[in-house]
Amino acid sequence: MFELDSRLENDTVNLGDFDLCRVLLMNDSQYPWCILVPRVKGLTEIHQLNLVQREQLSFESNLLAKLMSEIFKADKMNTAALGNVVSQLHIHHIARYENDIAWPAPVWGVHPVKFYKDEELLMVKTKLLDELNQFDNFIAV
Amino acid sequence: MFELDSRLENDTVNLGDFDLCRVLLMNDSQYPWCILVPRVKGLTEIHQLNLVQREQLSFESNLLAKLMSEIFKADKMNTAALGNVVSQLHIHHIARYENDIAWPAPVWGVHPVKFYKDEELLMVKTKLLDELNQFDNFIAV
Repeated sequence: MFELDSRLENDTVNLGDFDLCRVLLMNDSQYPWCILVPRVKGLTEIHQLNLVQREQLSFESNLLAKLMSEIFKADKMNTAALGNVVSQLHIHHIARYENDIAWPAPVWGVHPVKFYKDEELLMVKTKLLDELNQFDNFIAV
Repeated sequence: MFELDSRLENDTVNLGDFDLCRVLLMNDSQYPWCILVPRVKGLTEIHQLNLVQREQLSFESNLLAKLMSEIFKADKMNTAALGNVVSQLHIHHIARYENDIAWPAPVWGVHPVKFYKDEELLMVKTKLLDELNQFDNFIAV
């Protein structure tokens, strides 16, 4: 049975599920930042997925990155599977701007997380869900 | 006509080509670190690839990550498409160890590059090419 890592759960807001992955919004107002977590127990590496799952991950990751790039008018998308701290396989999708607080460095460990205010969080969630809900293979929470 | 970004060219050693991607070895002896560069002109984002190319990238990335994980007995693979400095689409594949110099932080910008000595470079190249050459869709330089 798949169970989300407690640190991922604490740091994010659950948006819903694609066929393979849970879609999380990182609660950090400094960058539009979503995380995909394949809902498969015990995974730490992409290459542990089977071929069908990998193609599904590629599909969902691509859809999310494209949609975030458009919604947030990103200068660059950063996509990464690291997992050095939280080993449960999760793939970061971060919309970056040439004037964001960490640019051009990667975001991890550069600045402490800054939570969204309630109204900001609602606005970002709404933007994402409006687009995500157009896809048959996404089910919102 | 595809042309490799000059910074990627300067920082790496060319190992050869998969069907889609050039395979580069980062000349940094601190981590086993390869980079895939889709040989398509003008790309900056994974979602600019078409479906066939994305599935090919997923295949090649998976093959490389699995092979690096095994050859180098990695504790964790880090896979990332960032491109905030060099915008040409390139995907990092880094074998990480719990006792490496940057752990658990991501490697970018943490420590200055430390070139391989000639004999180290030859050894790492040989290990990688011995495995890569077993795949029909890889052609060594």
